[in-house]
Amino acid sequence: MERRDAADPLRACRDAFDLPPGEIYLDGNSLGALPHAAVARVAATVRDEWGKGLIRSWNTADWIGAPARLGGKIARIIGAAPHEVQVADSTSVNLYKLLVAAVQAQPGRRVILSEPGNFPTDLYVAQGVAATLPDCELRTVSRDEIVDAIDESVAVVMLTHVHYQSGARFDMDDITRAAQAKGALMLWDLSHSVGAVPVDLNAANADLAVGCGYKYLNGGPGAPAFLYVAERHQAALRSPLSGWMGHAAPFDFTDDYAPGQGIARFLCGTPPILGMAALEEGVDLFLAVDRPALFAKGQALCSTFIELVETRCTGLGLTLATPRDPAARGSHVSLRHASAWPVMQALIARGVIGDFRAPDALRFGFTPLYTAHADVWHAVEALRDILASGSWDQPAFHVRAAVT
Amino acid sequence: MERRDAADPLRACRDAFDLPPGEIYLDGNSLGALPHAAVARVAATVRDEWGKGLIRSWNTADWIGAPARLGGKIARIIGAAPHEVQVADSTSVNLYKLLVAAVQAQPGRRVILSEPGNFPTDLYVAQGVAATLPDCELRTVSRDEIVDAIDESVAVVMLTHVHYQSGARFDMDDITRAAQAKGALMLWDLSHSVGAVPVDLNAANADLAVGCGYKYLNGGPGAPAFLYVAERHQAALRSPLSGWMGHAAPFDFTDDYAPGQGIARFLCGTPPILGMAALEEGVDLFLAVDRPALFAKGQALCSTFIELVETRCTGLGLTLATPRDPAARGSHVSLRHASAWPVMQALIARGVIGDFRAPDALRFGFTPLYTAHADVWHAVEALRDILASGSWDQPAFHVRAAVT
Repeated sequence: MERRDAADPLRACRDAFDLPPGEIYLDGNSLGALPHAAVARVAATVRDEWGKGLIRSWNTADWIGAPARLGGKIARIIGAAPHEVQVADSTSVNLYKLLVAAVQAQPGRRVILSEPGNFPTDLYVAQGVAATLPDCELRTVSRDEIVDAIDESVAVVMLTHVHYQSGARFDMDDITRAAQAKGALMLWDLSHSVGAVPVDLNAANADLAVGCGYKYLNGGPGAPAFLYVAERHQAALRSPLSGWMGHAAPFDFTDDYAPGQGIARFLCGTPPILGMAALEEGVDLFLAVDRPALFAKGQALCSTFIELVETRCTGLGLTLATPRDPAARGSHVSLRHASAWPVMQALIARGVIGDFRAPDALRFGFTPLYTAHADVWHAVEALRDILASGSWDQPAFHVRAAVT
Repeated sequence: MERRDAADPLRACRDAFDLPPGEIYLDGNSLGALPHAAVARVAATVRDEWGKGLIRSWNTADWIGAPARLGGKIARIIGAAPHEVQVADSTSVNLYKLLVAAVQAQPGRRVILSEPGNFPTDLYVAQGVAATLPDCELRTVSRDEIVDAIDESVAVVMLTHVHYQSGARFDMDDITRAAQAKGALMLWDLSHSVGAVPVDLNAANADLAVGCGYKYLNGGPGAPAFLYVAERHQAALRSPLSGWMGHAAPFDFTDDYAPGQGIARFLCGTPPILGMAALEEGVDLFLAVDRPALFAKGQALCSTFIELVETRCTGLGLTLATPRDPAARGSHVSLRHASAWPVMQALIARGVIGDFRAPDALRFGFTPLYTAHADVWHAVEALRDILASGSWDQPAFHVRAAVT
C-alpha cells in the first residue's frame, strides 16, 4: 500500500487538506474535509469583504456574481455549459424548484417517477410537490422496473445517480434516453457523484440536475447546493420559488415578477456568501487536477477496500451492499452487518471515521483527493480487529446520537 | 452631538464591531456591520468544528441544533416563545413555505393580500405561490385600504412591518386584529424591524412571520433567515418544502415524509453552518443589551437626522419620505431627491455609506448598536455640502453598479 501511495501522481492533493492527525477519514461522502485554502478564504471574506467592504462588496468582491461564477466552475466537473449551472439554496430546495417547474411545464403529465429507497429528501420533496400541485403524484418502482414504468403520465423521472447507501450507479445515458423516449424529463441528483465519479450531463443529454456542495466538493457543513437546467429548457421552465434574485432586474424594485434570463431565474433569495466562499475553494481543487485520473483512483481505492474486506474479514458477518463493477458504483462502499451501529462507533473510537446508515449499513467513502491506499489497509485491519475480538459490543458503542 | 454620545449608556456597544475607520456606515439596514466576535467564531467553526471535528460536529458542536438554538434566541427579540422560531433558508424561501401552508390550510380562501410597493421579493414569492396553488391569487391594495380589503376570500394578509424604503411602520396589533376578525391569518415580514424596533409577536397575537438575518441582526452577507409560526398553528400547517431536516425522524431514512413536531417541520435542507455561526454572534449582542433603551436610541438618531436635514438642507431638493412620528417608523430614513443615485455615490465617496433605492430614494439606516450621534451630524453636513456645491454631478457618480 505504501508503494502504491508513493507511486500515486495525485498524492500531493492530500496536502491541500487539513486532516486530523492519527485519524483515517472515510466520510467525505457525507461531509468533505477542510481545504487549507478555505481557512484563509473564509477569514478574508469575513474580515475584508464583510468587515471593510461592507455593502460595497456586493459589487467590489462580486458577491452578486457568486452563484453564476461557482455554477460555471461546477459545470466543468459535471459536463455542462457554464450558463447551465447555478449555486443556490440547498439540494432539497433546488429539487423542489425543478420538480415543480418540470411538472407545470407538461400539463398532461402529473407523475414524478422515482425508486423506493432513494435518498429520503428526494422522496420527501417530491411528496411536497405532489401535495402542492393539483393531481400530481409521486410513483416509486424498484430500479429494475424504472425503464418499463416510464409512460405518458410521467412528467419527470427523478433518480439519484449514485445511491447514497449502496453506492450503485445508474447508467445516466441509458435512463435519460429511456425517459426522453417517452417524452418525460430526466432529473439527476448528483449529490453522491459530483467530485466522485465522471459525470457528463451534456453527453447524456440530461434535462435537469441538482447536487450537494458539502460532500465530495468539500464545501463545508451545509454548503450551498447547485442546480442544472439544460439550456434548451431554460426559457420554458419557471421556478415556483420566484424570489428577487431570480428576477430579470432585481434592483429595479418593481412589483411584478419577471423571470431572469436563462439559468438566473432559478435563484431565489440572497446568496449565502460565507458558504459560497468556502465552497469555491473546494471546487477550485477539482479544476486544478487531472479529473479522469482522480476518479480512477477513487475506483481503485474502492476495489482495494472490497478485496481486502473479502480476504481479511471472511466469516465476520459482513455482506457487501455495493456493486463490484467499478462502472456500476460511486466512490463509497457499504457493508451490511447486524450490529452496524456499535461496530461503526467502535471504528470511530479507533480513529477510522465512516458512518452508519439505517438500518444496518457501515458506509465508507473514498475521496481520492485525500484518501491514501494505506488508509484503506488500516481501515480494514481495524474493522477486522473489532469484529474478530467482539470489542464493538460495549455499552458506550450502543448509545445513539442525534445525527447518525 | 459629542455630548450626547458621551452620555449614551449604549456607547460601548459600538466597540463590539469592526467598523472601517474614517467612514460613517449608515447601511446596516441592508448589511449589518461585522461583530468582532464573528471573526473568531467563524474561524473556530471552520478550523476546529469542520477541520478537526469533521462529521462528528453535527453532534459534538451541536450543528444539528443550530436552527432551533438560534431561533430561540431571536424569539426573545421578537416577543415569541423559543419553540415558535427557527432559523433556516432565506427570507424568500421561508415566505414561500408559510404562504403555501397558510393558503392550503384554508380551502375556501384563496387570496394573499398585500400592498403595492411591498419589498419586491415578498410580492414575487406570493406571485410564485399563486402560480403554484390552484385558484390562488395575490391581491394588492394601498396600505390605507388594507383593513377594508380583508374579506372572507383572504387566506393570509402579508405585510412588511417596517417598509423597506419609506420606513413606515404598520401598527402590528391593529392590522393583526383586523385580519383575524375576518378569519384570515396574519403574516409579518420583520426584515426591517427585527433588531431595529420593538416587536412583540405574541402580544399582537400574530400568526406567522419571517425575517432577515443580515440587516439589523448583523449576521453577515446572505445570513440565514428565520420564520415564526405561532404554537397554535404548528400542528395544522404543512410546509410544501418537506425536506429531510423537517422530517419527524430524519435519520431513520424512511421513504415517507412525516412532518416533525412543532416548528421543526418548517426546516427543509441541511442548515448552512458557517452562516449560522456568524449570525449567532450577531444575535447574541442583542441579548446582552437593554433592548428598550437600544430601540429608543435608534428613534432618537432618526429624529435627529430628520431635524438636521430639515434645518441644514432646506431648499436643496430633498423631500422626507419617512414618517416623523417615531412610533410610525422603523430605524431608517429615506429622502427623495431627483438625482438620488449620483448624490448617494458622492456621499459614499465622502465616506458616508447609505444606499439608493429605485427610483429616487437616498436611504440611511441608524443601527443603534454602532451608530453615534456624531455620525448623524457629519452625515447631514456631508449631504449638505454635496447638494449645495453640486459636486454630485460628476460623470463617475452617474455610473450604475450591478447592485444598488
